[in-house]
Amino acid sequence: MVKRILLSGYGNVGKEFVKLVKDNDEHVKEKYDIELVIVGIIGSQGCIYNEKGIDLDLLLKFGKGADALKEYGKINPLSFFKENIYDGDALVEATPTDIIYGQPALNIILDSIQAGLDIVSISKGALVTNFRKIISKARENNLRVKYSGATAAALPTIDIGEYSLAGCQINSIEGILNGTTNYILTRMHEENLSFEETIREAQSLGIAEVNSDLDVKGIDSGCKILLLSNSLLGTEYTIGDLKIQGIDGVTKEDIELAKKNGMVIKLLARAYLSDGKYKIEVKPTEIAEDHPLIGVKGTNKGIVFNTDTMGMVAAFGGASNPRGAAAAALKDIINLYR
Amino acid sequence: MVKRILLSGYGNVGKEFVKLVKDNDEHVKEKYDIELVIVGIIGSQGCIYNEKGIDLDLLLKFGKGADALKEYGKINPLSFFKENIYDGDALVEATPTDIIYGQPALNIILDSIQAGLDIVSISKGALVTNFRKIISKARENNLRVKYSGATAAALPTIDIGEYSLAGCQINSIEGILNGTTNYILTRMHEENLSFEETIREAQSLGIAEVNSDLDVKGIDSGCKILLLSNSLLGTEYTIGDLKIQGIDGVTKEDIELAKKNGMVIKLLARAYLSDGKYKIEVKPTEIAEDHPLIGVKGTNKGIVFNTDTMGMVAAFGGASNPRGAAAAALKDIINLYR
Repeated sequence: MVKRILLSGYGNVGKEFVKLVKDNDEHVKEKYDIELVIVGIIGSQGCIYNEKGIDLDLLLKFGKGADALKEYGKINPLSFFKENIYDGDALVEATPTDIIYGQPALNIILDSIQAGLDIVSISKGALVTNFRKIISKARENNLRVKYSGATAAALPTIDIGEYSLAGCQINSIEGILNGTTNYILTRMHEENLSFEETIREAQSLGIAEVNSDLDVKGIDSGCKILLLSNSLLGTEYTIGDLKIQGIDGVTKEDIELAKKNGMVIKLLARAYLSDGKYKIEVKPTEIAEDHPLIGVKGTNKGIVFNTDTMGMVAAFGGASNPRGAAAAALKDIINLYR
Repeated sequence: MVKRILLSGYGNVGKEFVKLVKDNDEHVKEKYDIELVIVGIIGSQGCIYNEKGIDLDLLLKFGKGADALKEYGKINPLSFFKENIYDGDALVEATPTDIIYGQPALNIILDSIQAGLDIVSISKGALVTNFRKIISKARENNLRVKYSGATAAALPTIDIGEYSLAGCQINSIEGILNGTTNYILTRMHEENLSFEETIREAQSLGIAEVNSDLDVKGIDSGCKILLLSNSLLGTEYTIGDLKIQGIDGVTKEDIELAKKNGMVIKLLARAYLSDGKYKIEVKPTEIAEDHPLIGVKGTNKGIVFNTDTMGMVAAFGGASNPRGAAAAALKDIINLYR
């Protein structure tokens, strides 16, 4: 069957998604009987749209971002529109994450639901700020919302909680959900570097962004555990309900001391039962050699579920890069329509 | 919606499944809108059947096995039948695994498919000996076959490969898929014990069976990697196609030597591409400190997938006991009908 995709956001991840669809169309058609057609791409200065499908080979010649869409529009002037066009079976949302207002993702998602599209979100902002609104709007319209890309992407988190642990009671979730901060803490631990030295190194390697506040202050981890908790534990929290502490206060001395005690400091994001209520917190935490996440090093991520009938189930790995995020969105689309 | 379950096999796992259904019926109904009714249980000397549902509270008073079913039949004489009755929406297959002929599971599964039941298998024998036959019979009849319980149970393996890695190319699968052998190797490594000492210990603790050949000789691991490979990599192997070496030849000296080199011996089950073909093997293998499965100790199990777009994705844990196996079957049922 043909599934028509509308993509919003054409940065690194959006472009990687286009590449992935182009490279894997045969495989996806053969294995899952799904023919993916990207009918539109929404950029910050207008959208390109063709009901028969965007010419992906041509588009990929122009780099990324609004400029690439405009270049494409110059050659296909009837494909470029100032106003966004909402058409297709599913929206793949890949605009930059804004955790204050959730825009522009929120409007794009709500307009897409209005137009009858299922939602596959890679960006976190709209979901973190307006989780219940989006989920209930989608339900009212008999549409589905998936967001593996927003919950640690190529590392299966929400899949395991929803699918592999179906029927279990999840008592707690504990994760190392951000690759950048885990890289920094790993380097500080292994090389005796200070936070300042390590963040500069991470920035020069492209592992941390120049403005790395979302990562370093624990906000990104907070967004992910929030979405997992709201989805899997039935909470209705927003980011303001969380206790979040980042890694920018972790000193060389803290690391030394932990080491001396045979411990390792990790930025743990946790949701756990306390007095009959789920509590969420993100903070640098000393873990011991026998902790299930002790082996999660460098830019790797990991998650642990503690359940009633299946015991402890943990996962780690998953490429921490734009291709991994795009692959998570492709997975969600396949699982919507297979 | 009501889903009527036929259970075959009423040993430890079968009984645990009955308990789980009884304890979780409210939760499953509320969360997934599935009302589970066990209409029949097939034992080795006859079956109990009631189209309105077996009285689980009563049944659980009688222990397990054929005798329990007979006791139940004494009180409910119209419920006990010498011949098996095939009725319901899904069969949960939990008879003992026979890897030579796959019986009695094979006949029970084929008769159930004939009668229009979806299949959820915990036992491995029928699938290992007759994988293609079962899958194609089910397809012909528009039925589905799930077997988390046969592929490491509470550890998600096939789920991750099929669902969380949808759209990926899986280049290799590597697993520690048997808890008993992993327990033995862990103890030998940590306590400098011989294989003979450790197996006796494991038997006295109930971790190894008195006849532990299936585990110790690597057959159980072989069955699991075979099912994973046939399901996820498209191979059509049977157990005879595999190169299997157990842990009964591993000596104290082998462990010493590995230790000296900073390595740990694990019973690895692997499926990997070699000259364009997937090869499967099970054998004791030295792994280094940075191997993703290095932290899998004791009766724990673990699995690693190497993929094209999502990189390495690993999982470990999952209760290695009858309750975990029963929970895996319950999960499969929920995922069939949710």
